[in-house]
Order: sequence, then structure tokens, then C-alpha cells
Amino acid sequence: MSQIEEVGRHLCFGGEQLRFQHASEELGCEMRFSIFLPPQVRSGPRPVLYWLSGLTCTDENFVTKAGAQRAAARHGVIIVAPDTSPRGEGVPDDPDGAYDLGLGAGFYVDATQEPWAKHYRMASYISAELPALIQANFPVDTARCGVFGHSMGGHGAISLGLKHPQLFRSISAFAPIASPTRCPWGQKALTTYLGSDPSAWEDCDSSLLMAKGLCKTPVLVDQGEADTFLQAQLKPELLEAAAAHSGHPLTLRRQAGYDHSYFFMASFMDEHIAWHVQQLDAQAGGPGDTRVGLSA
Amino acid sequence: MSQIEEVGRHLCFGGEQLRFQHASEELGCEMRFSIFLPPQVRSGPRPVLYWLSGLTCTDENFVTKAGAQRAAARHGVIIVAPDTSPRGEGVPDDPDGAYDLGLGAGFYVDATQEPWAKHYRMASYISAELPALIQANFPVDTARCGVFGHSMGGHGAISLGLKHPQLFRSISAFAPIASPTRCPWGQKALTTYLGSDPSAWEDCDSSLLMAKGLCKTPVLVDQGEADTFLQAQLKPELLEAAAAHSGHPLTLRRQAGYDHSYFFMASFMDEHIAWHVQQLDAQAGGPGDTRVGLSA
Repeated sequence: MSQIEEVGRHLCFGGEQLRFQHASEELGCEMRFSIFLPPQVRSGPRPVLYWLSGLTCTDENFVTKAGAQRAAARHGVIIVAPDTSPRGEGVPDDPDGAYDLGLGAGFYVDATQEPWAKHYRMASYISAELPALIQANFPVDTARCGVFGHSMGGHGAISLGLKHPQLFRSISAFAPIASPTRCPWGQKALTTYLGSDPSAWEDCDSSLLMAKGLCKTPVLVDQGEADTFLQAQLKPELLEAAAAHSGHPLTLRRQAGYDHSYFFMASFMDEHIAWHVQQLDAQAGGPGDTRVGLSA
Repeated sequence: MSQIEEVGRHLCFGGEQLRFQHASEELGCEMRFSIFLPPQVRSGPRPVLYWLSGLTCTDENFVTKAGAQRAAARHGVIIVAPDTSPRGEGVPDDPDGAYDLGLGAGFYVDATQEPWAKHYRMASYISAELPALIQANFPVDTARCGVFGHSMGGHGAISLGLKHPQLFRSISAFAPIASPTRCPWGQKALTTYLGSDPSAWEDCDSSLLMAKGLCKTPVLVDQGEADTFLQAQLKPELLEAAAAHSGHPLTLRRQAGYDHSYFFMASFMDEHIAWHVQQLDAQAGGPGDTRVGLSA
């Protein structure tokens, strides 16, 4: 396992907003992640939420714009915010510099196509290497771990959450790309990273996965009705139909007037964090229970 | 009075985070400002706070990073965030591109020296043109108006607040430049904008103004003890001594471990907004009182 090196530290709401870099074996490059440690870590392990950001973001957007630290400090929740793609020299980018492919647009999949396959392994990074690294270095309560995200990161949170129910016990999203196999952003990325055969894409599609009934992990989604990407790219109705098909516990809230921005996310961030804590506490047998290995 | 043109609008915590541009007569250029309107404006005039940002900022840093909208929506407070200097072609900048002079560094004074005097009139812009523009276009309760800011903007908030007690009835600051006549940032800016005679600077120095006992407007200051600018630039002890000299109602809180960043400000933003509301309500005779012209 790689060593982590601290590159940023700020006291925030009585906790610490930290930033680290490490050599990722999975991604074959130096990666940075941010982590908020609430003041309660001084007394023992705390629940942890992984935040997956959207297109063009690094680990810093959420940290500076989402206003999550207040609620995280109140509830005693650790929040880990990784980057959205591999980075650095030698990591391929879209030759045209498109914002929706390559750097900042890893789409939380493990690429199989060249030249992407060597570095673009964000699915394995988020669901295996990073959680192991966090667990080895910070006081996380592994029985109380959730995942949430925005847009591309909402797709990442739901798809990886549904596929790893023993790791992620609660899932939420803001304006997720609900079905990447059925929208332009997703089709472009999946064709590029996974090849032109759509059968290879199904395992990365939140709605198709939810329709299969893989698990019963609770899912909360907020979607702004004034979101300019709503109809062409996000399509929450596909997730809703999948949940109805499999009986998955999905709460989809359509929020009148809200757009795709961090102003929307900040408005409901406290509710998402409180909801995760409630779900994780209920599954773990009550607040502060740190038993490891309890199944959802 | 100039017309305002909307250039941005986001729903946020049930209110609206808006951005406007207008042709400033005082500054001789196009200016932008941001304004948060809480949901309560639908029912009538609301208290207003002016936020003055620090070096290098525009009107956007506070809006995206401070996490102020939640508390503003709860308390029903309008927050106006102007830019930190004149902008645009024809507006002079520091020839060396220094971050602490010229664009993004207006220091909230009215320049008298060339080539600055024509455009760099931020004191008059903040204390006259902008409040008149806001009052003409938004439902502000002029009897309940406060000012706050950070670093250079903390100096602006205290100095302009003390000089305009009929306009600004409450003043707070995060890590203000407490005495620009006695620190390198301030001496450089005041020499450049006001000339090399220090007697011309005194009227822009928060600590010197506070020592004079011009008014009794309550002042709240938070200062992080891990702020790297604390000893060389900020010097809150000078403000404290001035308050002791004149008996000014100053509350200076030294916050252990906090630095100069927005992570520090966000941690105490709710308290500052609640404090302003409390001060303004008390002076205006109770919550929601909209009488105009009550003296502090």
C-alpha cells in the first residue's frame, strides 16, 4: 500500500480539512484526495462518506463549495473527496481537450480500451484501493460507510454503491447521470473507455443495475427541476422506473427551481449527510456502534 | 443612477443567489456585484449586510466559499458582495502585476494619486453609490444595514463602518488589517493611492478611527491564531488598544488553530450573521421593524 503525504491542512468547524497525495497503484500515477475529519475522531472511529464529483472537478470543488463541513462536524462524519480521473504526465487526455472525456472525466469505470486502459481505472480505485488506504490511515468505522456524488459522480455513487453493498451501506446523489448507456455524455465515455459494444456498458449503468435487484441499499436522489441537463443527460425517470421494477428502496425528490450547480447541492447537503448517518446508524445497530462486518 | 443588468441567477436555500453588472459612475467602469435574496423578501423589506472581500477576490469568492446563504436564508438577511476594485480596460493595474495593488486590491479608499484617482474610488462606491443602487432595486430595510469583511475587506468594513454610522449600524470582520498605516500591505497601498504623506492615511485606518470615538457602532472581530499574516500584517492588538482608549464596543475573539482561509470564515459565518441580526434588531426596536432613520 502506498504512503500518503499531507499537502494541505485547515482547521474547519472544529475539525480538520486535509489534503493528501499518494502514488496510486491502480491508476499508475500520483493522486490527490481531500478528507474532512470531524472533531469526534479524537474519541474513536467515525462513519465515513465518499463524495464523487462531477465532470471537470478535482477533489477541491466539493471541499470549497458544498458547505458540507458544518453538518459533517455536527454528525461526526468523515468525508473523503477523491479526484475524478487519473492525473499527471503520461496520463492520456482527450486529444481535443473535451471537458467530458479524459482528465476530469474518468466516469468511475475501469477502461478496457487503448490508450486509456492503463490509467483509467477509477472504479477499482474508488471501490478498493482508496477505501483500503483510508482505512489504514484514518479512524473510520468500516461498518458505517456510504457514498454520494454529483452528476457524473452521482452515476459513480449509485453504480459503485449497488455493486459493492458490503462496502457502501448508503447511497445518495445530486442530479446523477441516471443511465449513461442512454445519454450522450455516457455513450461517448463508455464507447471510448469500454469499446463500441453496448453489452460491455451495462455493468456501469445505475438504472440497469438497480433494475437487477442486486441489493437493497437505500438510495436518496435530489434532482433540480431547472437543471439544464435534466432531459438530455440526466433522465432520473429511468432510475425511478428501474426502482419500481425491482422494488429498490429509492427516494427521488424533484426540487422545483434548482439547477445543476453547487448552490443546489449546498442547499440540500445537510439533509443528505443527516440521511446517511440515519441509514448507517440504523444498519449498524445504533449510533456509535463500531462492529465490523455487519451486513446491510 | 445606473441600470442594473442580471448576469447570474441560482436558487439557493429557498432564496436566490443573483449577480448583476452596472455602469458605475463613481468608478468609471462596468462593475459586478452579487446579492443573495432570502425567501423572506417576498413578504417585505429585509435587513442587508455588505460583505467586503480581501485581496485578489472578486464578488464571487464569498458567494461560492463562505457558506453564508444557509444562515442568511434562516435569518432573512440580504447579503451584497461587491468586487474589490474597479475593473476593465482603461483601469490601471500595478505594472508588476502585484497581488496587493491595483486590480483586486482597491483597499476601499478614494485614491488621490495618478494614475489611480479616476477609477480607484472604492470608499465612495461602497458607502454611497452601491447602497443607493441596492436600495433602489431591492427590498432592503435601510434601518437594518450592516457591513462585514475579510482581511483587506475587514479593514474596509471597520473603517467605512465607523465613518458612516448612519448607514452601517453593525460591523464585523474576519482577520482584518487592523491598522493599514502600520503594516506593509497597508503602507504600500496607502502610499500608492493617497501619496507619501502619512497624515493623508489616518482617515482610512480602522484602529486610528476607533481610537477617535466617532460612534458607538458595535464591532465583532474573529482572528485565527494560526493565521500566517497575523503578526506582520493584521495586528489585532492595535484595534484592541484603540477600543480600550475610546471605550468602543469591540468584541475581539482569538480563535485557536484557525488560519486566514475561507475554511476559517465558514466556521464562524453563521455566528457573524446571527450577531448582525441581533444588533440590528435591537437598534431598530425589534425584529422586522422597518422604521427608517433611527440612529445607532
